[in-house]
Amino acid sequence: MSYRDMRRALRLEETEGIPVWFMRQAGRYMRAYRDVRKRYTIRQVCMLPDVVSEVMEAPVQRLGVDAAILFSDITLPLEYIGMHVEFQEGIGPVVSGPVPWGREVEVRPDVFPLRGSVEAFRKRDPDVPVIGFCGGPLTVLSYVLSTGTDRELEVTRKFMLTRREEFMEAISNISAALLQAAREQVSGGVDAVQVFDSWLGALSPSTIRNFYLEALRDFVSSVRELGKPVIFFSTGTSGYLEVLRELDADIYSLDWRVDLARASSVLRDRGIQGNLDPYVVSASREECIREAMEIKERMKGRAGYIFNLGHGVRPDTDEETLRALAETVHGGGA
Amino acid sequence: MSYRDMRRALRLEETEGIPVWFMRQAGRYMRAYRDVRKRYTIRQVCMLPDVVSEVMEAPVQRLGVDAAILFSDITLPLEYIGMHVEFQEGIGPVVSGPVPWGREVEVRPDVFPLRGSVEAFRKRDPDVPVIGFCGGPLTVLSYVLSTGTDRELEVTRKFMLTRREEFMEAISNISAALLQAAREQVSGGVDAVQVFDSWLGALSPSTIRNFYLEALRDFVSSVRELGKPVIFFSTGTSGYLEVLRELDADIYSLDWRVDLARASSVLRDRGIQGNLDPYVVSASREECIREAMEIKERMKGRAGYIFNLGHGVRPDTDEETLRALAETVHGGGA
Repeated sequence: MSYRDMRRALRLEETEGIPVWFMRQAGRYMRAYRDVRKRYTIRQVCMLPDVVSEVMEAPVQRLGVDAAILFSDITLPLEYIGMHVEFQEGIGPVVSGPVPWGREVEVRPDVFPLRGSVEAFRKRDPDVPVIGFCGGPLTVLSYVLSTGTDRELEVTRKFMLTRREEFMEAISNISAALLQAAREQVSGGVDAVQVFDSWLGALSPSTIRNFYLEALRDFVSSVRELGKPVIFFSTGTSGYLEVLRELDADIYSLDWRVDLARASSVLRDRGIQGNLDPYVVSASREECIREAMEIKERMKGRAGYIFNLGHGVRPDTDEETLRALAETVHGGGA
Repeated sequence: MSYRDMRRALRLEETEGIPVWFMRQAGRYMRAYRDVRKRYTIRQVCMLPDVVSEVMEAPVQRLGVDAAILFSDITLPLEYIGMHVEFQEGIGPVVSGPVPWGREVEVRPDVFPLRGSVEAFRKRDPDVPVIGFCGGPLTVLSYVLSTGTDRELEVTRKFMLTRREEFMEAISNISAALLQAAREQVSGGVDAVQVFDSWLGALSPSTIRNFYLEALRDFVSSVRELGKPVIFFSTGTSGYLEVLRELDADIYSLDWRVDLARASSVLRDRGIQGNLDPYVVSASREECIREAMEIKERMKGRAGYIFNLGHGVRPDTDEETLRALAETVHGGGA
């Protein structure tokens, strides 16, 4: 592992080796996580800083990755603005309560201990870099508008296209809640904040420009003003990297549908994170290592490059494959 | 309408106006189609050339588009190689019978009257250009491996990554069946063949190169050798147009996740088709027309450009919006 390389890459500085972490590295694929979840619900985990930091530490210890990622859920900050989130088995977060438009919204912090969780981890493991995170406003809105996920943004898009004023208001209020979550994490001491606007790629570049780009740029800019680098994550957006570029994030986390060398040239003065296909990681260790070597070869010596998957680790992934993968990224060979 | 422009665009020649048709223009959104489906099942429609040509003609008459598209289903050619397709309400095609690997496969043509359907339409409407179609081998394989769709190719990818030899054999046998379907359509007199490898974009460029590109290139090349232009359609692939380019199709039909002007420069000597977001078309006539005008502006004067959606017309689309859209593409304004 190389915590120093991770910290340098987050500042877009040159590194000795390539630093690595995995989205959803603290997740169901891992026995240690499943054991914790036998004792606690997701909500309980999020409410108990000591448990959060235990969950965050496990992959760092077991996989040899170079950063921990805060354990939380992208919908929880909606509780800052008076909504309620319930985690339903097999469905995920279900959001209820007064909708975030057509009303005065007040941001009520400290509903759950985000800052405390980061601090607890920092105390436990002062050397390990910590990535904080929050959702992107559009993706979080999709959970407000639809029970279960609206990954193709079918419901969300209709709302955006037909009720523009309420859409803008919802995005603005949700942004305030998400910014508060980021603020608490930065106060707690995270090294960077990753914004997960995961389903953004359901939209065309034209629709994004006409309805959402300005609000999203403002949001990313507000998070950056907290003083830490911002990693912007989305999927399905590889066809319009030039639009992503306008968001002015420090680092872009890309899915597997793009050759990183090409992405790297469009986003030439920015950091890059990604982008191994998580399905390949779960399906075949051999192909996983082959593609990882290929990515390493292409990105070798690129300042501000962080190895990661193109999306979260899938539940059917073998922990041993991830360990071998981290070793491949760090080491010279397979 | 301008049938002449459509024929010229299919040959990558300059056109006076911009020709237009819509994927799935003969579909559930249209009352005339729903009426036919009250009388006949999908299989029955496909078996009756006169009914097929009635279904193909309706959108040409009602929307003013510049081409008809053969009505069929991408899975049906599997019956050429001894499999059976059943259309289940709310699920779609369900494939059964001996799998297309580990056995000698014989292509038995004339299981259903593809050639006859094209000929029947030609007799009815000799002037209207006809687009034929077949599935892409990988996408059709996904229907063999999974009941219902495997849009993220989760099952298909696992098969590909872990049983490479059988995968290659399946792709080769399915390609033979699909080629037969294309052959019959070309004999019947289609003006072009569109290959729908719709879910290709689930794969990374690296995985495609390592497992599928060569077989797909061979397939596209075999279809081209039938003597008509090939339009290659896929979704989620805008991040690696340079890989698509290697398929050597005549025209690329792109989804809405890319600015066509950029795509147009990567695919500079090829035709381009697309790419208005079908969700926008179903959700908002105003935004639909705005984005269509934007696409027109960008692609004006581009030889070999055909206006289309980025994927099929959605069932909740208003027929009147499509009519207005075709008029916008043809006319000077909204």
